[in-house]
Amino acid sequence: MSMKINVLGVGITKFGELWEKSVFDLALEASQKAIEDSRIDAKKIDAVYVANMLSSKLDGQNHLGSVVTTMLGLNVPAVRVEGACASGGLAIHQGVQAILSGMYNTVLVLGVEKMTDASLCEITTALMGAGSEEERMSGLTFPALYALMARSHMEQFGTTREQMAQVAGKNHFHASLNDKAHFPFAVSLEKVLRSPDVCYPFTLFDASPISDGAAAVILSSKKIKGGVSITASAVATDTIGLSERESLVELKATKIASQKAYEQAGVTISDINIVEAHDCFTIAEIMAMEDLGFCAKGEGGQFIASGHTRLGNKMPVNTSGGLKACGHPVAATGVKQIVEIVDQLRGGMGTRQVKGAKVGLAHNVGGTGATVVVHVLQI
Amino acid sequence: MSMKINVLGVGITKFGELWEKSVFDLALEASQKAIEDSRIDAKKIDAVYVANMLSSKLDGQNHLGSVVTTMLGLNVPAVRVEGACASGGLAIHQGVQAILSGMYNTVLVLGVEKMTDASLCEITTALMGAGSEEERMSGLTFPALYALMARSHMEQFGTTREQMAQVAGKNHFHASLNDKAHFPFAVSLEKVLRSPDVCYPFTLFDASPISDGAAAVILSSKKIKGGVSITASAVATDTIGLSERESLVELKATKIASQKAYEQAGVTISDINIVEAHDCFTIAEIMAMEDLGFCAKGEGGQFIASGHTRLGNKMPVNTSGGLKACGHPVAATGVKQIVEIVDQLRGGMGTRQVKGAKVGLAHNVGGTGATVVVHVLQI
Repeated sequence: MSMKINVLGVGITKFGELWEKSVFDLALEASQKAIEDSRIDAKKIDAVYVANMLSSKLDGQNHLGSVVTTMLGLNVPAVRVEGACASGGLAIHQGVQAILSGMYNTVLVLGVEKMTDASLCEITTALMGAGSEEERMSGLTFPALYALMARSHMEQFGTTREQMAQVAGKNHFHASLNDKAHFPFAVSLEKVLRSPDVCYPFTLFDASPISDGAAAVILSSKKIKGGVSITASAVATDTIGLSERESLVELKATKIASQKAYEQAGVTISDINIVEAHDCFTIAEIMAMEDLGFCAKGEGGQFIASGHTRLGNKMPVNTSGGLKACGHPVAATGVKQIVEIVDQLRGGMGTRQVKGAKVGLAHNVGGTGATVVVHVLQI
Repeated sequence: MSMKINVLGVGITKFGELWEKSVFDLALEASQKAIEDSRIDAKKIDAVYVANMLSSKLDGQNHLGSVVTTMLGLNVPAVRVEGACASGGLAIHQGVQAILSGMYNTVLVLGVEKMTDASLCEITTALMGAGSEEERMSGLTFPALYALMARSHMEQFGTTREQMAQVAGKNHFHASLNDKAHFPFAVSLEKVLRSPDVCYPFTLFDASPISDGAAAVILSSKKIKGGVSITASAVATDTIGLSERESLVELKATKIASQKAYEQAGVTISDINIVEAHDCFTIAEIMAMEDLGFCAKGEGGQFIASGHTRLGNKMPVNTSGGLKACGHPVAATGVKQIVEIVDQLRGGMGTRQVKGAKVGLAHNVGGTGATVVVHVLQI
């Protein structure tokens, strides 16, 4: 099916350790910014989709849909959408569906997460809610699960620590140009390689951080002249556990979702100018390049090393800084990717601008690839 | 807008204290039953919507969408939908939207909750995730919040303890005919009134229980001859906290959602033959009768006492036994309501059958009315 869902406006908070802000503050701030950017009255919003993974566990608040409509003074339908770290992308997908259904004309999609008030033990346990029973019961963590994938990739394809470090280096460089980023500074390859070990082959700088933040978009059936549209919204799932997969070096759900998305949008990979990819660990961006079809399987390491995806070159990936350096407030991430691409396609981002970008792709992953959401946006 | 979403099949597990079954077992059982009832191959399912409120907190599992597709051997889109006790109704609403959008032709909507493994303290705390910050911080619980509404209703309209007890008596009688019910037995008015106090004016039998259970439906764009269709799906929200409302004796969101639903379906209240109403406490069913428009505000108590809504009379309410006696596995409830109405409209339910039922209404509430979902089904 073909689609054209118009993005009226976007909003984003600072990502980082925001100790002075609650999950409610963040939700309201991003929503209000998106409403303001849309130049609509909040009363025009027909429905609200709130992506959130951890508030039930960390804040004791489940009913975020109604919390948001209460803060906005609305009585409209609201629902919380969840699929681990892919919650944001899934909420966008629901928003797109809502408009395609003809039920609602204007919807607010919000992704919000407040993580830094919890202890490291609480947060690590809570995040394992994205994995399988077997994985949780074995004491595996997400760094460990992605490290298994990284090890396999290294063994099968000769991918190196240096190539992974280059993902971190590139994304930190991009974040140094983004004042909303959790870590708005560049790091040297040396620094990545010599930072403390997390879980072999990962050092601290191979991993995305625990962040607070929120992002929001207003989607509409109403076209605005020269505006950005979502032209594809595709989701796929894979086994919840890594051990049940046929391969440790690919995300099957990324392949399925991206193929569907290219078909929906009627684009080929050569049309894509800018990508926000789910780089929860450096290896994840390398595999994403392969699974999205930008390079052959096994060549992701060289593809990154070539500089192709660095700002200023052919197809910049993660100009926001990615999960790695912009930060990863889990359910906000998928919405933030859309905000970044909309901002880039609109132009006027200064030093971070990708010149002449017309087609962008957002790739959001839940767990170790159990849920993948791919969106294509065009201007 | 008008709609006609076809229900291909339904499935439900036993509701109750199911200590031998996990949240995964329940999810799979209800899904398989719905697939079997639909006489379709599971491979025909295009997307999965899983309603669940508490698994993240009680089981440590967030990523239920992918858990379910994994169990069914599918790679299709899957998402968890949440809005406290209205999660089930919201998931049906998302399923309806998915089909109306043209994106998916056949969707599985599942509601599942596993509550009885947690301690009473854990579960009470977890359930307050449906309330406002203020309510949680004040130490209020849901029995206390609904008791405030009951007290106001008694004072303003002279509603009596006996009238409330009649809701429990009727719903237990209905449950005595439903072998899936948590409490499949009748209780006398005397027994309700003399059961232990929970929170004045409620005794134990005024309150719905903590239950395990799951329910599922298969929705489709494909019409089946003589099949049941969803002809309205409407959602409204109200302030998350009770203290911010204009009135304690009505659920504004019920009024808004039901008016929208009547319009969508093109029915009036006199067309409705059967209702599943959200009777988390007996007062809630009394208020629902008023807010859905079946009687004037303040007359809900007399309306119940008249016997009008008892099986065998004009418009039976909660033939399943309701939340009160069929049980209340929170996110399963909204889906169970749809299953009960589909079963009734199809006919052949024996002693529990509402004769000649053609139009049914399901009313699902989250929190103290912060989210309300109303569906109309017709054969």
